[in-house]
Amino acid sequence: MSGNHEEKMTPSALTQEVIMRLEATPSPRLREIMQSLVTHLHDFAIDVQLTDQEWMEGIRFLTETGNITDSVRQEFILLSDTLGLSSLVDLINHSDVESLATEPTILGPFYVPESPRREFGESMVEYEDRGEPILIKGKVITETGEPIVGAEVDAWQNAATGFYAVQQPDVQPATNLRGRYTTNGHGEFLIQSVRPVPYPIPADGPVGTLLRDTGRHEWRAAHVHFKVSASGFKPLTTHIFDAASDYLDSDTVFGVKESLIETFVTDPSGQLICQHDFVLSPE
Amino acid sequence: MSGNHEEKMTPSALTQEVIMRLEATPSPRLREIMQSLVTHLHDFAIDVQLTDQEWMEGIRFLTETGNITDSVRQEFILLSDTLGLSSLVDLINHSDVESLATEPTILGPFYVPESPRREFGESMVEYEDRGEPILIKGKVITETGEPIVGAEVDAWQNAATGFYAVQQPDVQPATNLRGRYTTNGHGEFLIQSVRPVPYPIPADGPVGTLLRDTGRHEWRAAHVHFKVSASGFKPLTTHIFDAASDYLDSDTVFGVKESLIETFVTDPSGQLICQHDFVLSPE
Repeated sequence: MSGNHEEKMTPSALTQEVIMRLEATPSPRLREIMQSLVTHLHDFAIDVQLTDQEWMEGIRFLTETGNITDSVRQEFILLSDTLGLSSLVDLINHSDVESLATEPTILGPFYVPESPRREFGESMVEYEDRGEPILIKGKVITETGEPIVGAEVDAWQNAATGFYAVQQPDVQPATNLRGRYTTNGHGEFLIQSVRPVPYPIPADGPVGTLLRDTGRHEWRAAHVHFKVSASGFKPLTTHIFDAASDYLDSDTVFGVKESLIETFVTDPSGQLICQHDFVLSPE
Repeated sequence: MSGNHEEKMTPSALTQEVIMRLEATPSPRLREIMQSLVTHLHDFAIDVQLTDQEWMEGIRFLTETGNITDSVRQEFILLSDTLGLSSLVDLINHSDVESLATEPTILGPFYVPESPRREFGESMVEYEDRGEPILIKGKVITETGEPIVGAEVDAWQNAATGFYAVQQPDVQPATNLRGRYTTNGHGEFLIQSVRPVPYPIPADGPVGTLLRDTGRHEWRAAHVHFKVSASGFKPLTTHIFDAASDYLDSDTVFGVKESLIETFVTDPSGQLICQHDFVLSPE
């Protein structure tokens, strides 16, 4: 049409057009997700006035992230982790400010189900390790402090080398430094292990480059992972962090929460002890 | 720490922590982009209360998008196109509601630089095509209607099969249906071609699945692409759409603008004509 009598397209009109187009989505939940995604994606581009070159750089970044991702390397999850999205989704789904339960934190990529069942006080060290011996002990309790008998405490952590068993199948036994413990008649658990150490996330891909370009490092603060469950209670996935660790203020995947930092103490016999109680909410 | 005396992490506190962490970004522009991206990404997850399963579905979608992307197939650009992001970035950078210039639209993936220079009125059909012959004509003019002599009109379009030459290197000559024309002493251009037809974007990957899941189709409305340039004027990248085409209201990459839709007319001799003037803004 030869005149300029039509209204010109504007950024906000375009966003509305895309949202309107998505109205045809059969699933109401997918419709809600896609319309919100488009709104925020467009708002981002408008807010920063994204240039053609920057858009292309974004496409290139995603393409490289796709290229390095395979059945063992998941760079998109690393990206989500380092942008704080994984921790945010964990918070949205598993945290409740009103609750007295132990704060949750992310599962992480190294969880292996069906760890060996271990006795009260048994060691989960199956491999000669230069790690510092430690006793991990505590109780699983209700919000009112009552012990929970027969609760399962599924623990896993890295070796002094920085690696989890699942990362070193040719070096560590598959069940090294992981185990499922059961609380005793007083709701107590007792685990012999070694002190966990900080470790870097894989930083040789586009996410590592992005971390460096944004003045960040690739390290996680030292921690032991736990999944705690008991019949009639909400399952808990969390970490205990070592208060003496580096990177507590800059854990690269935003997993640290103040209430999960524990000061490890040395008892009169010289034994290093990490003591922490887990509080579960009723289902 | 055994008590609950610390403040619990909340979604908004987590977002603030990520934003604060990005303060160390050396480049002010990258800092601005990343902080805005994180804000909008987190706001999206909070707005829809994204579940663990939905987050994993998103990771899976991006992984598949990465898997299918290679040197010829760019699924991330298709994703950007079908979410309206490519058109939005084009609008942000190349449109000006105040300007009287022809509205721009996206470049698209099929532009090939250095098309053959063609004479006034020359055909750009190099391949026996069952397409309907058409004359594309018009002027390149200033905002006040003065003809621009010697402007370059770089045109490209698909064949009646739906494919661009670059998509069918074994069938169509490489320079079929593209050419660089120059306006004459009256600012006019004249191109012999065939009527463009609607065509689908590649829909056998994750983006095609997303289109179907959101009740959409994969078709673009019929159009001819143009890059118009002249010394002293801002270059223009746009399309002319055929008013008789399907999908004008649902072009899958959101490229259609009202002012770019042209009714093709048949002259007394039976010749189909697409007439459109391009208005350029001064640099």
